[in-house]
Amino acid sequence: MLESWSKSEKMNARKLFDRAREREYKALMDEINALHLTSPDEVWELKERLNEKAKEMDERYDYRYSRLIYVFAQLVHAGYLSLEELEVLKEDKVDCIKRFVKGDAYE
Amino acid sequence: MLESWSKSEKMNARKLFDRAREREYKALMDEINALHLTSPDEVWELKERLNEKAKEMDERYDYRYSRLIYVFAQLVHAGYLSLEELEVLKEDKVDCIKRFVKGDAYE
Repeated sequence: MLESWSKSEKMNARKLFDRAREREYKALMDEINALHLTSPDEVWELKERLNEKAKEMDERYDYRYSRLIYVFAQLVHAGYLSLEELEVLKEDKVDCIKRFVKGDAYE
Repeated sequence: MLESWSKSEKMNARKLFDRAREREYKALMDEINALHLTSPDEVWELKERLNEKAKEMDERYDYRYSRLIYVFAQLVHAGYLSLEELEVLKEDKVDCIKRFVKGDAYE
């Protein structure tokens, strides 16, 4: 059973969450800005990519304390946060996130 | 009542149709390739734009002889064909398309 989230821990969690989301948007915008489409198929692939991404991000960025461990594990797995960055959280939570990341339990 | 489409007229119609579609894709790809997104909102605007465009093009490029007059009028209106280019078709059809374009009857 995890300890509840302290006020300072909540602030740190929020910062991590926002930082990950910013990184994900940045990566997506860089990808789009670098595009050089040359065929209709590529246009519709981009459409599909954006629709999937919208769904994925909508599911991923779920800021409920009951879900945050899982959310952070996913963000580490997707490369938008590092395990080191999570160390601003309390040890029990970091350990739990690490177990998730290791076991790929969230897939 | 319009005359039926002769073989050579069908070939010309097909060429016009394909040319318009190529132009529309070219314009869309140029637009995407020139993008420089800087905010999440712009990403989701692009997603919406592509979803609408897919629907619009799907409706627009309807190659049935019973629909072609209307389709060509729309393509002239949208700027993907000029009235001059349509002159490879028989006069009765060109006149009919012009009437559509003038009256905005297709909107």
